[in-house]
This record gives sequence, structure tokens and C-alpha cells, in this order.
Amino acid sequence: MPLPSIVLDPPFNITRISHVALTVADIERSRAFYEEVIGLVPTSITDQCVYYRGVEEACHHSLILRKSSGAPTCQRIGLRTLTEADLDRADSYFREIGCPSAWAEVAHQGRTLQVTDPFGTQLEFCARMPVQPRQITKFHRHKGGCGLRLDHVQLLTPHVSEALEFYMKLGFWLSEYVAADDEHIRAVFLQRKGNPHDLVFFHGDGPRLHHFAFVTPETQHMLRACDIAGELGYGAKVERGPGRHGPGHALYVYFRDPDGHRVELFNTHYQFMDLENEPVRWDPADPTAAYPWGMPARSQWFEQATSFEGQEVRPASPRPSPMTLERFLADGC
Amino acid sequence: MPLPSIVLDPPFNITRISHVALTVADIERSRAFYEEVIGLVPTSITDQCVYYRGVEEACHHSLILRKSSGAPTCQRIGLRTLTEADLDRADSYFREIGCPSAWAEVAHQGRTLQVTDPFGTQLEFCARMPVQPRQITKFHRHKGGCGLRLDHVQLLTPHVSEALEFYMKLGFWLSEYVAADDEHIRAVFLQRKGNPHDLVFFHGDGPRLHHFAFVTPETQHMLRACDIAGELGYGAKVERGPGRHGPGHALYVYFRDPDGHRVELFNTHYQFMDLENEPVRWDPADPTAAYPWGMPARSQWFEQATSFEGQEVRPASPRPSPMTLERFLADGC
Amino acid sequence: MPLPSIVLDPPFNITRISHVALTVADIERSRAFYEEVIGLVPTSITDQCVYYRGVEEACHHSLILRKSSGAPTCQRIGLRTLTEADLDRADSYFREIGCPSAWAEVAHQGRTLQVTDPFGTQLEFCARMPVQPRQITKFHRHKGGCGLRLDHVQLLTPHVSEALEFYMKLGFWLSEYVAADDEHIRAVFLQRKGNPHDLVFFHGDGPRLHHFAFVTPETQHMLRACDIAGELGYGAKVERGPGRHGPGHALYVYFRDPDGHRVELFNTHYQFMDLENEPVRWDPADPTAAYPWGMPARSQWFEQATSFEGQEVRPASPRPSPMTLERFLADGC
Amino acid sequence: MPLPSIVLDPPFNITRISHVALTVADIERSRAFYEEVIGLVPTSITDQCVYYRGVEEACHHSLILRKSSGAPTCQRIGLRTLTEADLDRADSYFREIGCPSAWAEVAHQGRTLQVTDPFGTQLEFCARMPVQPRQITKFHRHKGGCGLRLDHVQLLTPHVSEALEFYMKLGFWLSEYVAADDEHIRAVFLQRKGNPHDLVFFHGDGPRLHHFAFVTPETQHMLRACDIAGELGYGAKVERGPGRHGPGHALYVYFRDPDGHRVELFNTHYQFMDLENEPVRWDPADPTAAYPWGMPARSQWFEQATSFEGQEVRPASPRPSPMTLERFLADGC
Repeated sequence: MPLPSIVLDPPFNITRISHVALTVADIERSRAFYEEVIGLVPTSITDQCVYYRGVEEACHHSLILRKSSGAPTCQRIGLRTLTEADLDRADSYFREIGCPSAWAEVAHQGRTLQVTDPFGTQLEFCARMPVQPRQITKFHRHKGGCGLRLDHVQLLTPHVSEALEFYMKLGFWLSEYVAADDEHIRAVFLQRKGNPHDLVFFHGDGPRLHHFAFVTPETQHMLRACDIAGELGYGAKVERGPGRHGPGHALYVYFRDPDGHRVELFNTHYQFMDLENEPVRWDPADPTAAYPWGMPARSQWFEQATSFEGQEVRPASPRPSPMTLERFLADGC
Repeated sequence: MPLPSIVLDPPFNITRISHVALTVADIERSRAFYEEVIGLVPTSITDQCVYYRGVEEACHHSLILRKSSGAPTCQRIGLRTLTEADLDRADSYFREIGCPSAWAEVAHQGRTLQVTDPFGTQLEFCARMPVQPRQITKFHRHKGGCGLRLDHVQLLTPHVSEALEFYMKLGFWLSEYVAADDEHIRAVFLQRKGNPHDLVFFHGDGPRLHHFAFVTPETQHMLRACDIAGELGYGAKVERGPGRHGPGHALYVYFRDPDGHRVELFNTHYQFMDLENEPVRWDPADPTAAYPWGMPARSQWFEQATSFEGQEVRPASPRPSPMTLERFLADGC
Repeated sequence: MPLPSIVLDPPFNITRISHVALTVADIERSRAFYEEVIGLVPTSITDQCVYYRGVEEACHHSLILRKSSGAPTCQRIGLRTLTEADLDRADSYFREIGCPSAWAEVAHQGRTLQVTDPFGTQLEFCARMPVQPRQITKFHRHKGGCGLRLDHVQLLTPHVSEALEFYMKLGFWLSEYVAADDEHIRAVFLQRKGNPHDLVFFHGDGPRLHHFAFVTPETQHMLRACDIAGELGYGAKVERGPGRHGPGHALYVYFRDPDGHRVELFNTHYQFMDLENEPVRWDPADPTAAYPWGMPARSQWFEQATSFEGQEVRPASPRPSPMTLERFLADGC
Repeated sequence: MPLPSIVLDPPFNITRISHVALTVADIERSRAFYEEVIGLVPTSITDQCVYYRGVEEACHHSLILRKSSGAPTCQRIGLRTLTEADLDRADSYFREIGCPSAWAEVAHQGRTLQVTDPFGTQLEFCARMPVQPRQITKFHRHKGGCGLRLDHVQLLTPHVSEALEFYMKLGFWLSEYVAADDEHIRAVFLQRKGNPHDLVFFHGDGPRLHHFAFVTPETQHMLRACDIAGELGYGAKVERGPGRHGPGHALYVYFRDPDGHRVELFNTHYQFMDLENEPVRWDPADPTAAYPWGMPARSQWFEQATSFEGQEVRPASPRPSPMTLERFLADGC
């Protein structure tokens, strides 16, 4: 089965990943982490909700934390369409293909269309947000990892190949993928905004949000985020890294927030906007794809993730069996 | 006169700045500079021509240096269209509006349409190039400033407002501009690829190429490029910086290559792809727009630039009178 | 005349540069600069005086700012002796050679001996200060340039050769010097602590304090200090750099504080503690000694400096005639 | 039992750690690692031996690799004395206390005294080496981690308290130590050169060389060393880190060389040369001492080390039981 082709005239125009909405148990506890360690900028704060944007972002928010007494969940993955008309086209499209969709009132966003994709991923689309001043040159307010902008989310699903097909019909381009062969695709990196990814799907029990990722300016900021995490009592939250990715080539570090949501800081992405660029295939049996140096991620990095509110998690088949840190050490590597 | 509106359905789809073609007197002399100081990757080298790409680029080239016994010139500014069909649409469009255009055979590029814009800027459009391996993770080959990719060119023209209108009709978005008021626009930053600029036009004698700019990974690489310039005998070629821009907010350093062409290394650009983002206006009377700290650029930075092969340079009216380093020192600032 | 020889058993044991005491017009105004831009840590603050230490320093202070209604001056350059007994030996020594010296009560310092050297430099020696917690790992409090520790001071004097002889008798080692030949020494870099310098003397009208210098961790911190200077209204205080030194090889940037005192941030010093290491001579006619890349310093960098309280400034002969930025530009370099 | 007191007039003057001499199986294989990954500068190369110095070092060598067909060993830890006379005083001193010592001819070193300390550590002392040009400003030759200078070695011994006493009699200062109380000292950080350490002793089977450490300029160089390790096939040699130390506060990364010798790159040391500075005690039960963030080192980091040629390794009692990565994961931390 060949990889799907790029669709140049998609049914509506998605421009980029926009935001992530999560529930958390304690707004104050989350604030210390996201402001001091990750370095996000709070646009609006109440005792029920905090809206964050990255240091360079002019949008109102790219991360929403809503207080909830239940287990921490992901409520929505937000995507931007170029225009309001694209939202209407999206509404028609999803109705036609039988995806549940509904208009919603969401604070601090333009008209918002909420959709659940066939794999249970809870999306919402909007075309505008209130404009906020970029904080790029507010240097003396920059904190921690200085998270610049939301870049991508990684999702777990038992249906990677189907997700690839679904999202490429929406106009996403495939930049890289992990597959022993084109029949057994383990992961796909999909993009609309011209760099390697907006949405990443990995084979695993899902639908679940594995992580969301903010760009950081320099190597030094990633280490600074770790150091501040250690200083402020979040040292055990540095779950993986700093290290180097195979796919995407970025330098990264992964944190678990106080509710267990996973957030990545990374740098070093490349431009991907020419049709002649073939997707890069990575062999899952090649350890340099997963850890070009050092050791692999611990098993919880592969297994733990955030459920979507109200979506049942379905098991992946075959069971994922990545090289984990535990196996690596037991094998005497 | 209000700023022109964004055109969402342009006559053809330009995706990004693509490449710059320059003439130089001595290929070997240029190579030492571009490879050791700027850190570009040579894709193809003959004694008549060298094709460079940035460290992360998969395209065949983003800089062409062609040997010439004449004065150093800029031959072409290259732009990418998304598809081959866009090239045909571009051809029709330019014929219709009376811009000289012609198909050309250019080595290592797909079908190429050469056009001179109404201001004398010599452009060429293509939709594809042969794919080359990205060098992002060839760490031990990274050199000097580690120029990652071509990001933008800055052009001088006596016709900034007209250029703004012309290029916005082609679908460019205005991210920032320098103007005492909207009648007297001194500079416009225009983009297609979703960050602040692909093409910049400044008021000045033109058409001339003021500089082209490569992104560099980190602060440290900019200083490293300077240090290697000093070590290898190009210390006097560090013309301005390192310093911080007002518009665009980037950290920058400007070099003059051995033929006098100006090349910038910079980092820190932001995403610009939402319709709600208003262009940022900078007041030319505000010194922090030109030099947030330190001193202004010397007069040659404002006055010297590369002519286009065969294009007469027309004087700007009124004469530009920026705050130069010479005036700054004479004023006892 | 050969260079003086190293004295291995000096009359008393100076271990390092210790501190600088300056007068300023407005403590609050100075605090904004030293805390936000340079990133020093205030140990003690009153409305008359503020004591700073560097981020890594365990000593009570390395910079004292005392409020004064007069012209800003340098009151003292502080040096450490290893032991209290060394202070007594110093007292005897200076009495013997006829240097004015006196015991003084100085807050937050151990027993303090104040001495004026034969060139008018006002020194003070102490062997201890109250211990303060190092702030190295208080990452989230690090600000601006993150000044780590006082490294050296540079002094102007018409008597460089005599200062060289005087200080080498005190056990200083010469690491580098600027001289057309050994008869005409323009500058000497003298050290006790095992890196290139504690005290630097340059030919010029003196005695005056040209600058004092704090080490900064990384390239990025130097640029961050400039950016915060620009953001907080001190952009015009970035007097020179960022640039690369010839002697000492450091990357540097010079600021003028709100009273005009000059402070340097730099990195990259080397170890200098083996007797086989010959001093490095720099030719003053070689521009790469003064500016390996870019442009020379403006004339005020050479000419302006801080007088010592109550010391008459004597003119240097011959007049210094360095390559200044003004000459460089006038010469059309 | 109180900590030993500082000895201000030691029997002879050691100035600093000088060099490490190791045996390796294959000179060419070692060169690729030390030159491309660690970034050392070869001063002299034969097929039997290679002498390295750090990028800033003016001494002939700080690392000697000698070809040997046997198991890889450490032959000598080199220390510098200030003068030749100090060597003679050292000779007398060691004879007097009954330590085996002998004069040796060692290529590229001045007169050399070889001594075995009471714990089996094989030392050699010299006062001079041939001077080499520092490579600090040979920027375009800098490679990999750009190892600047040898800073310290860490040794394993069952006799930490005795080593503390022995070396403090030689004039070493204690900067930091790990101890539940002053009776049960697990580690001591000892210095002569004015920063936290030249020699470190940890409780463990010994005498063995745990690692030697080179200073690296910036955070970015540590990651660059890892990336180049990965690129050149040494990815599995990145044994621990990048991470942050408790004691000494440095950012670090540990590599195993092709023979299994362990080398550290680190930055961020502080000045330690005032008598008022008390040694800092770290509680071995406090995990932030060993890993302020992230996870502990794997067991091999604690257990594997390089034996000294011809010295029997004696077991430590009680057995060390650090928190290892294996335990940490098994405990479900």
C-alpha cells in the first residue's frame, strides 16, 4: 500500500496546530510549573482557568488549563483554519463524512467548531483569537525554558495508518514516518505549517495525548528549564533527556507537569514546504532512530499518556514493544 | 492611503524565497568565506560556479555564485511556487500586467520563469530542485555560523509603497513596516512562508540587493562566525553587529563577502500566519527601532549595495537620511 | 631593559582582586542597572550604600556603591591577602618603601589596610569577609548578564613600566603585555589568582579606573545583558562590543553604568599558573590585537575613566594615540 | 573526629592537577574519540603514544595515551609543583613518610618524580613541560566538546578519610564532601588551584581512576560532543547526562572512551581561594546531591573504573550502595 498523496486543494484550509486544553487539579500548582519551568506567559488567570501563550505568540492562548476534580484529561486539541469560511467548510465536510461536530462557545476564541475524529481525538477549530503583544523582546521577563510557541502534539492511537489517510485528506503533509515497511507504519509526522510537524501519531493505546511541545530558543534554555525544575522541586518531573531525536532531529527534554501531562521543550526544526521533499522513513529496529546517543526512554514514557475526556481508550494491536530503558539495562547494553 | 489588504487567492502560489544568484570575481576566494565563516554546504562546485545550500536545506541550492570578470552583481532573486501549474499562471499574470518575463534553462532547477518586476528587481520562479540530503545531523561537518537556510532578502528601491502594493497583490502579507505615517513608508517586511519576511524593501537608490540572510541556530554561532572571520583574515568584513534588530526582533550580524555582497546571519524569528495579526509599525524617528542598544550602523551599511545585472540604479527621493554611526559620533551621542 | 622576573617569595601573599568601591549619585538608579543588566546579587542595601557580590561568590561583596553628592569616583580597589598575618607584613612593607598606609574600619570586611600605591591607585587589603551563600544554583533568580565573579580591574596610568616593576615585586605574574618593544610598554596584564589578570595597567592619564570586569557564564548571557539594557532604557550604555579581545582572548561587552563607571562582562579566560609560561607580547601597531574583527572602540572608551577620590590625574606622555572608531571611519577603513 | 585543618606551609608546593597517563589498545581508535568527540589537541603522535592538551592549554600534554596489549590501565596521575626545588622537597618528604618514590625519565616533561601514595594511587610530579601555543583563538580548528583544560580526576578508594588527611597535609583544601556525619565520609573534593577540585576521592573498591574531567566552554559544547559521539558511532559511549551535579554545581556529561576509560566534560566551576570558606557538606541520603533533576546514574557508573597498572584493587567496606538507575526504576520512582 503506497503512502497517500498530498492533497493540494483540501476541503478547508487548516494552517497550524493552535492550542491544547487540559484539566488540572490545582491551578496554582500548575502555574508554578508552567511559568517558572516552561516559561509560558499567562494571558488570563482565574481560579478556574489559566490561558497561556508562548513568549513569541500573539494569539491569546496556546495552552488552556481548566480546574477539574476528576482525573486529569485532555479536553481538546485546537487547530487553526485560515478564515471563518474555512470553518463552515469544515462543518460541512465533517457532517458529510459522519464525524460528530458541533459549534461551541469558547472564551477568548472566535467561532469554534468541535469535532471528534474517527479515532476519538477531540479537536476544535477556530480562525481567530484576540491579539496579544508578543513578549519576544521583554527579555527581563523571560523565565525558565522560555517556551516560544506551541509547535506540535503527539497522539497515541491503535490506528496510525488510518489516521495518516484521514489527515492527509485534510491537506496535511507527511514529513517523516517510522515503519519497518509501508504496511506496518508505527508513527507519522504530519504538518500544515511548513516545518516537520503539527500532529504526530504513534502506535499505542488510544486515543491519548502523549505530549505537546513548545519550541525553546537555544540549547541553554533547555538545560535552564531542567535546572529550575530541580531548584523548585520538580526535578523528578524531568522524565527524559536532554537528548537528541532521530525523527525531526531536534534536541529535546520531556517534563511531566504536576498532573502528569507530558510537555516537551525542543529546538532545531527545519523548513518543509517543497513538494519535491519525500517523507523520510525511519526503521523502528534502528536504535539510532530512537536514541542517537545515550539510553532509551523509560517504559512510562512509552506507556503513560493523557486520556481524552469521555473517550474510551482502546488497546493497540500488536502490543507496542519499544526498546525501553528497563530492557536496555536488563540486556546489559 | 490605507495599507493594502491581504489577498487570499493570489494569481499564483508563491511559497517562499528560494535562492540568490550573484557574480563574484574569484570562486576560490568566495568559497573560503562562505564555507568557513558562514558555514554553507557546497552542493556543486566548478571553476565557474558554486551552488550552496544551508545546513538544514534539502533543496539543491539557495545561493549561486557565478564567476564574472565584471563588477559584482546580483543576477536573480529566486522564489518558489508551489506547483508547476503556478509557474504557468505566473507567466500569464506577468504578461497580462506587462512585466517582462521569459522561460529560462537554469542548471539544477526545474522549469524557470524569469521576470523583472516594475522596480527593476530581477526575479526567477521555479517549483522544484533536485533533492539533497539535509546536513542537520552531520554535526562534525558544521562550520562557522552554521547557516541553516536562506530566510529573506532585503532590497533597496525608490518605490517602497508601489512595491508593497505590487507584492501584496501576489499574496504577500505585511508583517512589519517603518513609516512616520501611512503616507510615507520607508520599509516593508513581506512574507509568504509564515514568518516575518521573505522580501524586505527599504527606501533607497535602487533596484539594489542590500543583503540576503541565513538563519543561524544559536547566539553562539553568530559570534563563532565573527571569530572565524577574524581568524581567517575576514575580520574587516564584519560590518555591523552583533546587535539586535527592532523590526523582526532578531539578533544579527552583517558581513561583506570578498566581492562586497552583504550577508546577514540572524536568529529568533517568530511565526506569522494568522489573519488577525496586524502589521507592526515602527517610527523611523525612534532610535530603538534601528538600534535598541549600542550604536547605529555606519553610513556604508545604508548606502552600499549590490546592483542588479543590467539594471540602472535610480536615486531615491527624498534622499534617505538615517542616523548613521558617523552622525551619531559627530553629534556626541 | 628586560621584563622583571617573577618573585616567588613576595613580602606578603596577595591571592586575588577582591572588590571595587565606587561613589554614585543615586543608589536606586544604580540598583536597576547592576541587578537587572549585570545580574549582581545584593548582599546588603541601605539608602546610603549597596554591597554586591557575583552569582557564584561566597564573599560578602565584590562591588560597593556608596552614595555621594560629588562627582562619581573610585574610592578603593580591594585586594585579598591569604592571611591576617599577611596584612601585617603588608603594613610593614609599605611603611618601609614609603607608601602611605593606614588601618581602616570598613563594614563587612575583616581588618583592612588602606594603601596608596606610588601611582596614586587607592588600594585596600583585607584577608576575610563574612561568608554568604553562593547563588550558582539559584537559577530562577539569575538575571541579566549573570555576573559570576569579579575578575579584574583595568587602570590608566602614565607610569606603566614602573607599575609593572612595583607589582611584580609584590608577586604578580605578567601574562600578556602590549609593547612595540620592551622599552615602550603600553599595557601590562598582571595576575595572582592563576588566570590572565587581576590588575591591568594601560598607558593613559591617571591614576584612573578604566573598568572593572565580571565573568559571565556563556556567550548568550552577554547578549542577554545587552538586550535587557536596551529593554530597560540603558541601550545607550552599551559602549563597546560584543566583540573579541586580542590580549586575554575573551569575548567581551562594555557598559557604562548610570554614573559613567565602566563595567565589562566577558568570558573565556585561561589558566596561567606554570612558571614556564612566557608573557605574550602584542604589537600595538597590529589592529588584530585591539579588534580581531569589526571596528575599534570609540575615542571615549580610551579617554573616559573614573578618577580616584582625592587623587590628581596626571597626563600621560607621550599622548596615547590609539586607533579609534572615529579615526577608523574618517580613514575610510 | 573534626575535619583536618588547612596546611598553609605544606612540605612542597603542588600547584594543580597536571595530566593523566592511560594505556589503550589502539591509538587510531582512541584518536577518533578524543579529537572528534572530546575535542582535544594532539601535540605529538606516534604509533605507540599520543600526547593531548586541551584547547586553551600551553603545556605539552594533559593526557597521554600509550599503546598496550594488556588490559587498559591508568599508569599515572600527574601533578605539578611550582618549582624544581619543590620536586626535591617532595622526594625528601615521601622518603621520610615511607612512600615509594623514584625519579623517572618521562618524554616531554621536566624532571619527574614518581610516587605511589599509601592508597595505591600512582602519582608523578613535575615542574615543567615544553610550552605549546594555546589554541583558544584557533576557532576553526575547535572540534566536538572543545575540551579546554584538564580540571580534575576522581579516584575510588576504600580509604577516603585517610586520603583526606594525607592530601590535606600536602596542602590541599577541602571544598566539598559527602558524609552522613563527619565520621563516615563518602567523598572528598580537594583542590590546590583555587577552584573546587583537583583530586576527588570517593568510597569504593580501589585504588581506581573513576574519571578525569575536561572543562568545556558552554552548555552547547557538551551537547555538541554528544551529538558528534552519536554521529560517529560513539552514541553508546554517552554513559551519563547531560545533567547537573550537586557537589561542585557543574553541568556534566560522562563518556566512556573506546577502552572503557571514563572522561567527563563539564562547565561552571567557582573560585575557591579564601580561608573563610567552609567546606560544604552533602548528605548522601539526599537525592538532590546526586541528581538534582532527572534520574540517577546506572550502576556501572558507580562500579566500573580503571585500575592502576600493577596495583591490586581492594574492596571497600562497607559496600557502597548508591541509588542507581536500576534501583530507581525497580522502586517505581
